[in-house]
Amino acid sequence: MNIRKLPKASGAYSFPLLIKHILQYSDVLEPDRQIVYRDQVSYSYAELKKRVARLANVLSSLGLSGGETVAVCDYDSHRYLEGFFGIPMTGNVLHTINWRLSSAQILYTINHAEDVVIITHVDFLPLLTQLAPQFTSVKKIIVASEGQPIPETPLTIAGEYEELLAAASDQFHFPDFDEEAVATTFYTTGTTGSPKGVYFTHRQLVLHTLAVALSFMSVDKACSFNNSAVYMPLTPFFHVHAWGFPYVATLLGIKQVLVGRFEPEMTLKLFVTHKPTISHCVPTILQMFVGHPAAKHVDLSRWKVIIGGAALPSALCKAALERGVDIVAGYGMSETCPFLTTAYLGPEDRAVEDLSEQIRMRIRTGSPTVFVDLRVVDEDMRDVPADDETMGEIVVRSPWLTQGYYREPELSEQLWRGGYLHTGDVATMNERGSIKIADRIKDVIKTGGEWVSSIDLENFIGTHPGVAEVAVVGIPDAKWGERPFALVVLKQGQEVAAEDIRAHLQPLVDRGEISKWAVPDSIQFAEAIPKTSVGKIDKKTIRGRLTLS
Amino acid sequence: MNIRKLPKASGAYSFPLLIKHILQYSDVLEPDRQIVYRDQVSYSYAELKKRVARLANVLSSLGLSGGETVAVCDYDSHRYLEGFFGIPMTGNVLHTINWRLSSAQILYTINHAEDVVIITHVDFLPLLTQLAPQFTSVKKIIVASEGQPIPETPLTIAGEYEELLAAASDQFHFPDFDEEAVATTFYTTGTTGSPKGVYFTHRQLVLHTLAVALSFMSVDKACSFNNSAVYMPLTPFFHVHAWGFPYVATLLGIKQVLVGRFEPEMTLKLFVTHKPTISHCVPTILQMFVGHPAAKHVDLSRWKVIIGGAALPSALCKAALERGVDIVAGYGMSETCPFLTTAYLGPEDRAVEDLSEQIRMRIRTGSPTVFVDLRVVDEDMRDVPADDETMGEIVVRSPWLTQGYYREPELSEQLWRGGYLHTGDVATMNERGSIKIADRIKDVIKTGGEWVSSIDLENFIGTHPGVAEVAVVGIPDAKWGERPFALVVLKQGQEVAAEDIRAHLQPLVDRGEISKWAVPDSIQFAEAIPKTSVGKIDKKTIRGRLTLS
Repeated sequence: MNIRKLPKASGAYSFPLLIKHILQYSDVLEPDRQIVYRDQVSYSYAELKKRVARLANVLSSLGLSGGETVAVCDYDSHRYLEGFFGIPMTGNVLHTINWRLSSAQILYTINHAEDVVIITHVDFLPLLTQLAPQFTSVKKIIVASEGQPIPETPLTIAGEYEELLAAASDQFHFPDFDEEAVATTFYTTGTTGSPKGVYFTHRQLVLHTLAVALSFMSVDKACSFNNSAVYMPLTPFFHVHAWGFPYVATLLGIKQVLVGRFEPEMTLKLFVTHKPTISHCVPTILQMFVGHPAAKHVDLSRWKVIIGGAALPSALCKAALERGVDIVAGYGMSETCPFLTTAYLGPEDRAVEDLSEQIRMRIRTGSPTVFVDLRVVDEDMRDVPADDETMGEIVVRSPWLTQGYYREPELSEQLWRGGYLHTGDVATMNERGSIKIADRIKDVIKTGGEWVSSIDLENFIGTHPGVAEVAVVGIPDAKWGERPFALVVLKQGQEVAAEDIRAHLQPLVDRGEISKWAVPDSIQFAEAIPKTSVGKIDKKTIRGRLTLS
Repeated sequence: MNIRKLPKASGAYSFPLLIKHILQYSDVLEPDRQIVYRDQVSYSYAELKKRVARLANVLSSLGLSGGETVAVCDYDSHRYLEGFFGIPMTGNVLHTINWRLSSAQILYTINHAEDVVIITHVDFLPLLTQLAPQFTSVKKIIVASEGQPIPETPLTIAGEYEELLAAASDQFHFPDFDEEAVATTFYTTGTTGSPKGVYFTHRQLVLHTLAVALSFMSVDKACSFNNSAVYMPLTPFFHVHAWGFPYVATLLGIKQVLVGRFEPEMTLKLFVTHKPTISHCVPTILQMFVGHPAAKHVDLSRWKVIIGGAALPSALCKAALERGVDIVAGYGMSETCPFLTTAYLGPEDRAVEDLSEQIRMRIRTGSPTVFVDLRVVDEDMRDVPADDETMGEIVVRSPWLTQGYYREPELSEQLWRGGYLHTGDVATMNERGSIKIADRIKDVIKTGGEWVSSIDLENFIGTHPGVAEVAVVGIPDAKWGERPFALVVLKQGQEVAAEDIRAHLQPLVDRGEISKWAVPDSIQFAEAIPKTSVGKIDKKTIRGRLTLS
């Protein structure tokens, strides 16, 4: 196919998509809107812009002339928001340090990302001090001490964050540059190997911001993401740019309430004071809001919450809906900036009165965000039928996907094999293009040409009254490729045989809810299920033991 | 400033911003939403996609392999919407013919744009037949005859639109290509010279769509542009892509009501039937809605209207507000895709009860759309003070501005001198960055270093009870550069002297509303004001006469 391209006037300006454009008009339409940090700080967007300029001058004064990595190690704060802008807007790369990793992993990411300067909350100074002897690129540390004196440390301290900003000019000329310049980087951890660095360009983040804004604004609910919303993130900023929402909030110039170190009391106090209308978090945090005794009388009925990071459990969705929360699931991952899908509820869906139907719609992995080309495919990259039953891997194209893993060429090729980013998640798709995640691809059981979700099987077996806990994995099988294997922990005092478990599954087979091939031939009983350090079922260990035995 | 760019995995997909992505999910979230054409046609977005594929196959069968110009000459219709997608999605360039131009100008644009195929409504076939002997590039005509037989014509008719579509496959593989490919072109006419062709790429239109959607959706009014809106354009599609809104409506997958040939009765009938919540038009069309006897009892209270193409008069704004219309002014031009600004009303602004204050806010030229870098500058490209008094020219940068005029290199350089697109409009800016257009730069009077709006002077002189009509132009002056000159037509039977006019202006000088330099030294009386063919004051002729005399 041919296309036509035309010459440009010599003066015609090729407008690059840069993060500075997200900040540009934030202070114009509603100049009184505030950025709030706990009960300590509150300032306007005009002040945010000045502080971003001050930060840029501080970075320049440290000899950073662009193209270098500046890390932030902090709780969700106004400082972090300033870093979201000031670091990439000076051509540098923001590394958002995941301080929940092990100290060895944190060290690995700091060295691998080639951090030159680290802006850290004083709480993390002991950790950095401990790691310092092994730093390979770090030259200077900026400490946010929040009014406390900076503790003794052998690290090279450039200064205290507020003091450095106060001493710098609030004017900085942010030049235009190539929209393909890298703006951010951070690390994702799998069950094996070292953390892997993903990276996002200015263009990618701008397009992600526009598309996410559009997806959430287009829904006609009072508390959706419009320009009179109040935004309170409850996901760490280091977690995939807090899902990109701080950029959306800044583009809209809406009030932002940043909770700092997560403490239920402070968070609830901020909630009651500022009445946020939109937040996002993992299920556990929402559980705190609907389950915490102190939150019992808090009005949650003007609050929209987007749940990600883990599947939204039905029970939590129900509890939230009963409190009036407008709750929906979203889906994405570190490699994808992160947004890929959100559960969609149109005007008619919202009017549905049946609670279980509301839950069913809201916990779906959801419909693709605009400009996400999402497919569910079999092992030969053919689309599976959109029957909401046939499983396949989710593969995607979109303008905001990491183009590789930093300095990991083999893993990068693996990620992008066949021209699509492979999510490693297995899902079904319905006729309206909405997907439902079934499993991780490494855990799905491929038996006789069919895919069986290990998570579904665990859920079904778990409903047997004698079963306390269960893990299902696939084991190699000469004839069928793989066969499901179940490791079962019984409730104390229960006597259950493998045959009882199979009998418990038979009605599901009869009703067509699972295929007869999904019933495990092999069921073993154990005292405990092997778990990873973060408490997830350690399927790798289970498979390893089986292979050895 | 340095930046960092990183290599991509070989399989990593560089996602181009293409018009096909606007259409991609239009049928997914709300599959029942309809595209309506008068009382003749109604179909779903799934059908729209099929028809776009059929159109693509028709274009292919005519030998168009991309990079060629396909014109549409039609009223606002489902066909036109199909052309908005099918023509650029096949790599071809959509030329939207302005059938309101003179036939000589229409011929000029068809030949200059190198139209190969024209899709025309049967109403325009006589015109095209008349022009045909002078066509230099047109090979074939597709006629939309709406059920009537196609009249005899010596033109080469490829077929009837519906018949061709019906015979074509509804499957077409739309490949990805360079986002800088030209997607659309059309012509703008000034007071002098030939029409000038502007052109827009896929990237530009996608970014314009996202930004316009965001600007209108972010405002928290019930009838704003969200996904349960009903859209009824009242601007011709040929007029700067109907301001880009059909792309926004399609991205959101909302109901679209297309009125075809503009007839008040049919339009009102469609309004009452489909209850649109968002429209856009020039002031005259809105006047029809608030002034037409048949519209007297139509409920306009759920309707948002964006007014452009001409300044929104206070009286019309008032009349519309009194009928409950949520009305705001917007601003842009053919060269700018078109959106540059919209009057902004935040939650507090909307709550203001004083009607005259509401009018004042809503008729402003407004605040820049996101990603529009808008400045108001003096002749040396320095920003004028943001005092809402000092006038300057509006110059802009944004991702969606024409990069030149087609095959007019000198005019292109002129348009983009100094690296900014020069709008030719003179405005003031307030401290919140909102602008108010004062005049066209060619009409503004530059006297003694000050800029005086000819339109302001006309308005002020026009309030003299003896004055029927007035035109003000600048005339060369050796000492002051220019001095204002007023040509006045008196009401029948009135006797007014130049001195009376000056005395009428004196209180305005005393109150500081106009500078004393704005009072014309020279005032002449005449029987009539010279007008252009479209009824505007012909200032060029007035200036010409003065120079000769």
